[in-house]
Parts: sequence; C-alpha cells; structure tokens
Amino acid sequence: MKSLVIVAHGSKREHSNNEVSQLMTQLKEDMNDEYPIILSSFLEFASPSIPEAINLCLQQGATSIKVLPYFLSAGKHVHEDIPQQAKIAVSPHNNVHLEILPHLGSSTKMIELMRGAISGH
Amino acid sequence: MKSLVIVAHGSKREHSNNEVSQLMTQLKEDMNDEYPIILSSFLEFASPSIPEAINLCLQQGATSIKVLPYFLSAGKHVHEDIPQQAKIAVSPHNNVHLEILPHLGSSTKMIELMRGAISGH
Repeated sequence: MKSLVIVAHGSKREHSNNEVSQLMTQLKEDMNDEYPIILSSFLEFASPSIPEAINLCLQQGATSIKVLPYFLSAGKHVHEDIPQQAKIAVSPHNNVHLEILPHLGSSTKMIELMRGAISGH
Repeated sequence: MKSLVIVAHGSKREHSNNEVSQLMTQLKEDMNDEYPIILSSFLEFASPSIPEAINLCLQQGATSIKVLPYFLSAGKHVHEDIPQQAKIAVSPHNNVHLEILPHLGSSTKMIELMRGAISGH
C-alpha cells in the first residue's frame, strides 16, 4: 500500500500548523485513491514527528512511503534532518520502499505560483 | 515606479540562498516590465535585509513597494517580523505606498504545486 508523508517545519502558532492540516484535507480529497495513507508531520513544535508519522504508515500496512519536504529552501532540514529521521524510522522494515521527494521549493512550477501571488490571482 | 521585494527566511547554506537568487532571475525576466525594481531580501543569515532592500528600492525611485513573504506558513516571521521591518523602513517616506502581500503558502494554487511535486511533473 502506497503512503505519503508531508513534512512541514511546524510552528509555535497553532494557526500556522492548521494551514498544513487544511492542505492535507485537500490533498487527501485529490490523492487518496492513489495514496490510501496520507499524513502530515512536523520537524518541530507540533506532532506527529517524522518517525511517528512513518510508524503510523507502517501500522496501517504501508509498503512504500513517499516523503515530501514542505519546505521552500534546501537548508539543513531538507538535506540532513528529514532524510536521516525518515531512514532511521524505516530501517527496521527491509521490505518497505522509502523515497524522499525533492523539496517543494524546487518545483519547476514555483515561478508560476509566485507570479500568481504577486498579481493576486 | 513600482517595486517588488521578495522576503525569504535565509539560510546558513549559501546553496539555499542561491535558490532564491535563481528564482529572482526568472521573476525579473517575467515581471520587470511591470515592476522595474525587483529585489530579494532575507530575514536571517544573508543580505540584503528587509530594510536594506527597501532602502535600495527607495534610492532607485520606488513610489510603491510590494512585499511578498516567500514563506509557506504564517508564523511569527510572516505575522510580525516582516510587516514590522517593512513598515519601519518605509515610514520616513509618506509618499511611498507599501503593500504586504499574503505569504506564498496561502496561494490557492499551492495544492496544484504539491500534486505536481508528488507526481513528479
């Protein structure tokens, strides 16, 4: 079973973490057929953590886990923290395929999103 | 003259800040007709700062300054730091119109970007 874990930074502000939850709701509506398990996770200030989210996927029978870093820039979190935490959490399960996707900011469509945000549509 | 200041968080990793610079280059190609002045700025770890970027706009004759927070989530940086720093920098110039745009993560097209990032196109 295919699963998807979105990793956001997390904030001390609940409102900010709720933004991620709202996106998750939309994403589930769109992609639950392809990915029966879709979870959000947070590096800091909110739960579940990356290992907790991955364990939830495994408990629900995930055989593949895609991790999308919900980050604009590839700093230490994207290059080190996220892959390390994900690999450690999956490592006891040899039969589970883990893929760390490129961080969101590297999307080729980012420039379109920025143009839209600037022009207000 | 219309100007645009993109505010990124900034990273200790030069590569991460260069990602922002590359987006700026693309954005200038696309939007320089409408915004003759387009600058990036950083909250931390890189320059110019927000006040420095705004002063550069003013020196080049900007009469309106749009600020786009290049952030996915609206935490303290988006709610407090960015508007405060921008307002203080513009405040001595009564004739300059300042607009703080909604942060990038609130874009209605974000969900499309995420779908694309997950599907690899």
